[in-house]
Amino acid sequence: MEKALAKHYEWRGKYEIALRSPLDNADDLAQAYTPGVALPCIEIQKDPAKSYDLTRRWNTVAVITDGTAVLGLGDIGPLAAMPVMEGKAALFKKFGDVDAIPLCISTKDPDEFVNTVALLEGSFGGINLEDIAAPRCFEIEQKLKARVSIPVFHDDQHGTAIVALAAVINALRLTKKSPENVKVVVNGIGAAGTAITNLLSKAGFTHIIPCDRNGILYEGKADMSPAHAEVAAKTNPHKITGKLAEAMEGADIFIGVSGPNCVTPDMVRAMNINAAVFAMANPTPEIMPDTAKEAGAYIVGTGRSDFANQINNVLAFPGVFRGALDARVGEITDEMNLAAANAIASYIKDSELAPDYIIPSTLDKSVTKSVADAVRMAVE
Amino acid sequence: MEKALAKHYEWRGKYEIALRSPLDNADDLAQAYTPGVALPCIEIQKDPAKSYDLTRRWNTVAVITDGTAVLGLGDIGPLAAMPVMEGKAALFKKFGDVDAIPLCISTKDPDEFVNTVALLEGSFGGINLEDIAAPRCFEIEQKLKARVSIPVFHDDQHGTAIVALAAVINALRLTKKSPENVKVVVNGIGAAGTAITNLLSKAGFTHIIPCDRNGILYEGKADMSPAHAEVAAKTNPHKITGKLAEAMEGADIFIGVSGPNCVTPDMVRAMNINAAVFAMANPTPEIMPDTAKEAGAYIVGTGRSDFANQINNVLAFPGVFRGALDARVGEITDEMNLAAANAIASYIKDSELAPDYIIPSTLDKSVTKSVADAVRMAVE
Repeated sequence: MEKALAKHYEWRGKYEIALRSPLDNADDLAQAYTPGVALPCIEIQKDPAKSYDLTRRWNTVAVITDGTAVLGLGDIGPLAAMPVMEGKAALFKKFGDVDAIPLCISTKDPDEFVNTVALLEGSFGGINLEDIAAPRCFEIEQKLKARVSIPVFHDDQHGTAIVALAAVINALRLTKKSPENVKVVVNGIGAAGTAITNLLSKAGFTHIIPCDRNGILYEGKADMSPAHAEVAAKTNPHKITGKLAEAMEGADIFIGVSGPNCVTPDMVRAMNINAAVFAMANPTPEIMPDTAKEAGAYIVGTGRSDFANQINNVLAFPGVFRGALDARVGEITDEMNLAAANAIASYIKDSELAPDYIIPSTLDKSVTKSVADAVRMAVE
Repeated sequence: MEKALAKHYEWRGKYEIALRSPLDNADDLAQAYTPGVALPCIEIQKDPAKSYDLTRRWNTVAVITDGTAVLGLGDIGPLAAMPVMEGKAALFKKFGDVDAIPLCISTKDPDEFVNTVALLEGSFGGINLEDIAAPRCFEIEQKLKARVSIPVFHDDQHGTAIVALAAVINALRLTKKSPENVKVVVNGIGAAGTAITNLLSKAGFTHIIPCDRNGILYEGKADMSPAHAEVAAKTNPHKITGKLAEAMEGADIFIGVSGPNCVTPDMVRAMNINAAVFAMANPTPEIMPDTAKEAGAYIVGTGRSDFANQINNVLAFPGVFRGALDARVGEITDEMNLAAANAIASYIKDSELAPDYIIPSTLDKSVTKSVADAVRMAVE
């Protein structure tokens, strides 16, 4: 890990600007700059949609944060979040050939954040929100979507939900269970957990038990935040109560986007046969894979690259935006997210699918193409 | 010129993002992204100044417009201004190795513009304002400088002033005149003209006659804008009145940042011996070089690449920001601008200096280094 810091000092930034137009002689300058540049300006003035043909807008996404929920580090501020935004920008280019501009905005006021991003809309073909704390992130995403006519995607919500759903789909494929018959526990109802429960619902999962650190959420529970109340109203159909241990009884799938070591071997033992445990807390999972397997889990996934079944957003966001930009959609819909999840899942052939291979490798760049194709096809 | 449009359709953007960190295997990802990226984040959280060492901030400048005064096209809006911003970003990289991010902001409210840019401050090492109409640009620059602690530079003002002053300095060098003894007419008192009169004053020119389309500005003139009144108060010491023709009588230097064909041969004939005419209106100068020469001008410069003595900002802005970023200054001062002008002027050796070579070629990238060195040395 210390090597990563040394590398950052060496790189002095993980992205830079490259030229697409030559600037080697007077003709080059006259075409790319004055006086030639006046012509594309006039074309765009006449028809603003030409900004997608005559500037980089068609391929450009802003990666924007307020620095309030960075990795597992929390509210470390916009400046300190920049290494993550730059890393994301690098991944966007490497995996999706998307040009991503990392930006940090120094405000914690959701309306000011929304206004700032909305005023920049014309510079970009899409907006990837990043590392913004819940519940602020929900308000920001909702208001921003209402303001702008380019795709807005909060990766911590939807990217995570897409890849988690892909893992769940393949767990069912392997265990021959079906969405309407399984019990899914989602632990940690922040940005990711909320989006996961929503996307699971859209995918036909009817028996979802949401839990936070105090236990099971259910409709009518006292002292819930509005965001939690909204999740509770759409899940937990039998309004069961209790702690995480009670939720886990007979569960087929556990999805953790919470914190380290909150799942015990006893909880895993209480799950249904052929259980899948996706312990995605970083860097320390809710339960270590070996422990979960010893306790009887059939499938185990984490967020880490050093274990099997790494559930990592990089499988989703480059392809989602590649598809959204290519189709030039105004928004990224649930249908596109579902299509992306199915594309990631079906990327693994029946013959390859195994308990330790239910999700493609994060290094497999061709996943992006499958996701992008699926997103494009999901456009009505 | 039509070729320039075809080229823009071919390029589909004049910049793109390039990676500085490898992302080819799991180790690469673990260092550039999770979990390794947490370390530089924590370092910056502890010491925000580390953002200059651990992210691209040290080399990144935003090129930002509201699209209200684009080239000679006027208020064509933020989207239509983007080809110019992208061209500028390409020039920044090519000439100064500065990473410039082109941004357009969809507001005409100066305070909203300032707030938007200020909230993005942490993403950049400097801000290059571009193609913003006067007098709004003065208010924006002033308020932004008060808000942020990174350099703010409105290129249409200060870049133009630096290169114009360099041309004037070399005109005096060639004609053995001195700043305190020459009469300078500045025609067109918008963003560029205002900055030119200010920088000429700082450089020791005491006899400057500002003119707008209605004629000579003088202290106490009726119906002047506050911006014009401010210029008038600091220039035209004898409070002469009249039209441009009266201003030109006995003038040593004409600087036009106005419009096409407003200078007649008779006006040039009325100038002092060894007169210099800098007719910088684009694409059609205030007077064509041949006509000015025939009327007796000793030195003629324009903004165009197809005539001698092209007075072009690209000689200034890449070096100014290269120097400002390298010295990590909080603002770009008049002293730095003067140093930049002198560096451009003295780039031409005595033995090379000639009426048709008073300003270096815009294609000469080593000018940038001279300017950057001078700016760095001007830091107190």
